[in-house]
Amino acid sequence: MTDTIADRLARLGHQLPEASGPAANYVPVTRIGALAFISGQVSAGVTGRLGAELTVEQGQAAAAAAALSLLAQIDRLVEGDVTRIGRVARLGIFVAATPEFTQHPLVGNGASDLVVAVLGEAGRHARTTVGVASLPRGAAVEVEAIVELKDGRA
Amino acid sequence: MTDTIADRLARLGHQLPEASGPAANYVPVTRIGALAFISGQVSAGVTGRLGAELTVEQGQAAAAAAALSLLAQIDRLVEGDVTRIGRVARLGIFVAATPEFTQHPLVGNGASDLVVAVLGEAGRHARTTVGVASLPRGAAVEVEAIVELKDGRA
Amino acid sequence: MTDTIADRLARLGHQLPEASGPAANYVPVTRIGALAFISGQVSAGVTGRLGAELTVEQGQAAAAAAALSLLAQIDRLVEGDVTRIGRVARLGIFVAATPEFTQHPLVGNGASDLVVAVLGEAGRHARTTVGVASLPRGAAVEVEAIVELKDGRA
Repeated sequence: MTDTIADRLARLGHQLPEASGPAANYVPVTRIGALAFISGQVSAGVTGRLGAELTVEQGQAAAAAAALSLLAQIDRLVEGDVTRIGRVARLGIFVAATPEFTQHPLVGNGASDLVVAVLGEAGRHARTTVGVASLPRGAAVEVEAIVELKDGRA
Repeated sequence: MTDTIADRLARLGHQLPEASGPAANYVPVTRIGALAFISGQVSAGVTGRLGAELTVEQGQAAAAAAALSLLAQIDRLVEGDVTRIGRVARLGIFVAATPEFTQHPLVGNGASDLVVAVLGEAGRHARTTVGVASLPRGAAVEVEAIVELKDGRA
Repeated sequence: MTDTIADRLARLGHQLPEASGPAANYVPVTRIGALAFISGQVSAGVTGRLGAELTVEQGQAAAAAAALSLLAQIDRLVEGDVTRIGRVARLGIFVAATPEFTQHPLVGNGASDLVVAVLGEAGRHARTTVGVASLPRGAAVEVEAIVELKDGRA
């Protein structure tokens, strides 16, 4: 458990993106006691809707891209020290989808699988996956998280 | 307060369903301190959209079905002991609906009413009810929860 | 920091609305330890969808209207004493939108900016903004919150 999120992603063939900074009047992360609330991260560069322009495989790639941005926020929060991550409590997964689309769970696995591949048991989360009409900047997937941290710092 | 969730449901004419187990890399429930995060539960067997194929009454039945699955998760979490439930903090209610549909609160009551009928004051929750494009497996309603537990077990 | 939410809103040209009471079997606010969970508040009087009937500016006004109702709930929760507000942890912002709409963040700023204008640093929150098919009573925007309170009262 002494390697970093970036190390683990590299072994999986992913590069840790730059964590986005504060935008306007909201911030990427707030912390209340042991809980960190992470703002919704959209799938950078992957736009379109499931059931229309995108296949399930493309949706999974979009979910993984959103999860990468989420991991970048978590990495910054714990300053690269994965031992400070207690547990990913919950992922909220929003999939841009048509009314006819039914395979949201498969798309969501693109995010869930990457989080667990990188964080192991600490990454096993509760989740809610729904199909929405549209997402910021036309993104295909948006993922938010609540994460437990182990230290008591405020 | 010595009867179980199953007992109370039986008196209301409902049978407690089997709580679903872990699926892929996510789990039905995570626990952080006193808070339990329960994954979104879909209305088993009730598919379609409000404003299209389904009436409000059918939507309420779908919301109750999703709430039943939620109660099954809570029951398993507290091992049948309702006195361990502190408070249902929040329900997130997602209703598959057309753009023209407006009666989401009535649909949501199908979940809220059942949770309060079974858990009493401990079941009175904050909630957010929205209309989404589509839900996993074509479900009509999906409900997630955050629940306070009374004991200090991690 | 000795003036009230109503005072601050008045200086911004807004009037604090009446906080809505319990409806049916759910309540406007639950409190678990230091966390308050505030039910989704819809934009009273502003209906329609972004990308169809409403401009971005109208959407921002709707988001501000929903945030006003949220602030009314927070005001009632702290009995007018803003020093009891620790931090707004998270806003969930649901925008009724067409599949083609992309400017959800701009709409969401209508809520974020008002919360920060009124609460200052304590108001700077994590947020998730998504486009949904429809909202209760045809509302254009719905906003929910998780807020940290400073005192230890249950």
